[in-house]
Amino acid sequence: MASVLIREAKEGDCGNILRLIRELAEYEKLSDQVKISEEALRADGFGENPFYHCLVAEILPVPGEPQGQGIGSKIIKKVAEVALDKGCSQFRLAVLDWNKGAMDLYKALGAQDLTEAEGWHCFRFEGEAMRELAGK
Amino acid sequence: MASVLIREAKEGDCGNILRLIRELAEYEKLSDQVKISEEALRADGFGENPFYHCLVAEILPVPGEPQGQGIGSKIIKKVAEVALDKGCSQFRLAVLDWNKGAMDLYKALGAQDLTEAEGWHCFRFEGEAMRELAGK
Repeated sequence: MASVLIREAKEGDCGNILRLIRELAEYEKLSDQVKISEEALRADGFGENPFYHCLVAEILPVPGEPQGQGIGSKIIKKVAEVALDKGCSQFRLAVLDWNKGAMDLYKALGAQDLTEAEGWHCFRFEGEAMRELAGK
Repeated sequence: MASVLIREAKEGDCGNILRLIRELAEYEKLSDQVKISEEALRADGFGENPFYHCLVAEILPVPGEPQGQGIGSKIIKKVAEVALDKGCSQFRLAVLDWNKGAMDLYKALGAQDLTEAEGWHCFRFEGEAMRELAGK
């Protein structure tokens, strides 16, 4: 099986992170929502008070063997480890209702669908609405 | 009308913040999910790298006049202002599907219901599931 190393992202990973963000958005049919640049990813994640933290999976493929199995689970396990170390009591993920593969994986790993179970809806304010609210 | 001042929370507000968290959870019929202590609120929000930021509304009631109108909108407007100042391109809120008052307010202020419009579901990992994933 391919060897997988999960590690903290470095600033130099931002080009690849942006590529993966774009590939995910394309899969989600939401490419028009990706407005972030590599420069903004660098500034937001690697300044003094970072807006986000990021893990990356480094994969060393074994020739002739299938790639990719188990990487999602490995990253989620690492997120759980980091979250517990930081004193978090929970962590959340957002997933599209037609993405059955992801939903089944998260449930199999012990997550609860809060939208289904309790009726939580996610609301977004952006761009024009934000400027109007702020009077800018 | 009552005079409302929206300001950044101070560490000394944590007792009142916890009281409001509990009142909201009671309204949401989710009181059993409030596990945080005042001590944890202080540690998480007022250390070197805070886990959260918080605005509070100080209300000076005018005797004989109704209280409370417009405070939600004023806080959301302030959140939009702070978010734009910090370079955010959006901000999100979670709301229960039976809380029509909140949903109508957010929509009136320009928010989009992403669960309805795009099918986003919110998944939560917590407690036992996290420890099992992390092997702890």
